[in-house]
Amino acid sequence: MKTKEITLKPIGFVRRLSKDENVKDRSLISEIVVHKRLTKALERLEGFSHVYVLFYMHEIPAEEAKTLKVHPKGRTDLPLVGVFATRSAYHPNPVGLTLVQLIRRKENVLVVKGLDALDGTPVLDVKPFDSWDMTLDFRVPEWHKKLHEKDIQTHLH
Amino acid sequence: MKTKEITLKPIGFVRRLSKDENVKDRSLISEIVVHKRLTKALERLEGFSHVYVLFYMHEIPAEEAKTLKVHPKGRTDLPLVGVFATRSAYHPNPVGLTLVQLIRRKENVLVVKGLDALDGTPVLDVKPFDSWDMTLDFRVPEWHKKLHEKDIQTHLH
Repeated sequence: MKTKEITLKPIGFVRRLSKDENVKDRSLISEIVVHKRLTKALERLEGFSHVYVLFYMHEIPAEEAKTLKVHPKGRTDLPLVGVFATRSAYHPNPVGLTLVQLIRRKENVLVVKGLDALDGTPVLDVKPFDSWDMTLDFRVPEWHKKLHEKDIQTHLH
Repeated sequence: MKTKEITLKPIGFVRRLSKDENVKDRSLISEIVVHKRLTKALERLEGFSHVYVLFYMHEIPAEEAKTLKVHPKGRTDLPLVGVFATRSAYHPNPVGLTLVQLIRRKENVLVVKGLDALDGTPVLDVKPFDSWDMTLDFRVPEWHKKLHEKDIQTHLH
């Protein structure tokens, strides 16, 4: 029988310096406060400079998760495309995926740069980044490149 | 109050040509069969050559998800490290993240190359890959590089 529902538990939560800061500013530092009982599971993660963070966008209204098509980043000059063709938060499962720089680990707390998640966001997983997670030989559509021209200025390095 | 449990529903399932094939062989083709009601949400995804697939490793026994430390890929010549410092399936939330090549879309079915998920695996999300998902300026620890020497041979390109 096919799995119908999947239950996950947060491994911790995002803590931001200010609740009001612009989470889209990738130059900002935030913390991932992992449950203390999982501290051992973080050992040696600090050997990696970059990690993927999977998080649950808890502030997305359930109604929005039913959205099937969007204008990318709300830009009506771009075509209506399927939500899976975008990094919109309005996916059927509002799970965020962001590559962040791991600045340091203090026991159960990860200090990271570039996490675009609100204060209090439940974190589902953290995974080290390696070259198998990327490719230099990739293609994106023309409409998407128009977004990219802006984004490249705030690119994480 | 902090979120204690998160419920997700699969957007579809992995279909493999053979149930017996080696899912670690990144040269193999498999399919993601998305629920038909979500077909519109896939529109224009085919403009991207690579996508991330998030999936739920439903065959991992609940007991294993409690593992806090592992020898990477079971190699006892490497140190015991926290599970979050590895891509082991034994994370508290057994959610897989893999970058795959999107060969084509046939309505609600994505034909992909390089997905290391078993036949029948519930898929949680699909996201297009772009350069903000990677960095060329990254560091991995020495123990991890020893794994990497093997993996690079099957690297996805």
